[in-house]
Amino acid sequence: MKFCPECGAPVALSLPQDDHRERHVCTVCNTIHYQNPKLIVGAIPEWQDGRILLCRRAIEPRHGLWTLPAGFMENGETTAQAAARETLEEANARIEILDLYAMYNLPYINQVQLLYRATLLDLDFSPGVESLEVELFGENEIPWDTLAFRPIRYTLEHYFADRKRDEFIFRNTDLTPPTR
Amino acid sequence: MKFCPECGAPVALSLPQDDHRERHVCTVCNTIHYQNPKLIVGAIPEWQDGRILLCRRAIEPRHGLWTLPAGFMENGETTAQAAARETLEEANARIEILDLYAMYNLPYINQVQLLYRATLLDLDFSPGVESLEVELFGENEIPWDTLAFRPIRYTLEHYFADRKRDEFIFRNTDLTPPTR
Ligand SMILES: [Zn+2]
Ligand SMILES: [Zn+2]
Repeated sequence: MKFCPECGAPVALSLPQDDHRERHVCTVCNTIHYQNPKLIVGAIPEWQDGRILLCRRAIEPRHGLWTLPAGFMENGETTAQAAARETLEEANARIEILDLYAMYNLPYINQVQLLYRATLLDLDFSPGVESLEVELFGENEIPWDTLAFRPIRYTLEHYFADRKRDEFIFRNTDLTPPTR
Repeated sequence: MKFCPECGAPVALSLPQDDHRERHVCTVCNTIHYQNPKLIVGAIPEWQDGRILLCRRAIEPRHGLWTLPAGFMENGETTAQAAARETLEEANARIEILDLYAMYNLPYINQVQLLYRATLLDLDFSPGVESLEVELFGENEIPWDTLAFRPIRYTLEHYFADRKRDEFIFRNTDLTPPTR
């Protein structure tokens, strides 16, 4: 941030009174502009035969790789609504949201990711503009080597293990930057 | 938002290609400025005798009312770190974070609130700059009529009920605007 979104004047980094870190503060109207982490919300849509809906990304990052439907939460919606909306946008698929299943902190990119268990309601899905393909995968068909993101891999691994035991356990995982 | 934080030129509301809602788009550099919900993160600090740490607010909104330590999550931290930092700032209190206990969606103010169960580690607490008082309350001492926010009341109600049964169940609650 270089300019004040409220008045257009330059901003400068400074420490507001009683604050604990520097903020972008307007040099004219003195508005303090905070920057905060963003929520990414998605779903694990399961069809009645146990297969899971994945989308192959038509956008960067990770163009061409497979992911669960997920994206930035918008103002004015709930996390469950965000998960359903992203599934509709990326896969033209309708789901019923079940429990919150996983939360990932990615502090190095200022993100918190939430994934919900979900029931896929019909088979009338197709790629949205951000997807190249949308497909159902059984546990033994998951494209493990071409998954787009670590939280997607971890979520699917836990999901299949939990499903086998018939007990889904919410997981809260903190990630550090990928090493490769 | 009226001006572009990147170049200082005016922004205008318009619908970017393939998007589903209007955004603030810069009229000069064409940067799309997204606005997303914010995370509020807090803790339920329990001392070894079962009492819970509450803070009486020295700031608006709800100046003078009691709350659990909580506040806006910052860039570069995890949700658990945010809960511990807020407890340190508001109550000069050290905690050990346990499980995520409650999530509230408040879509009408673009917030998601998370509350963690936590163990208070010592009794050397005191009001931070945002608190008038910090105090431990037993279940029968909670100032129910002067709690600051509905999520705080709901969380404490569930917490004591769950503690009695010795089973803490994560809850995901969507709130609508207060009617009064
Ligand atoms: Zn300004
Ligand atoms: Zn611009």
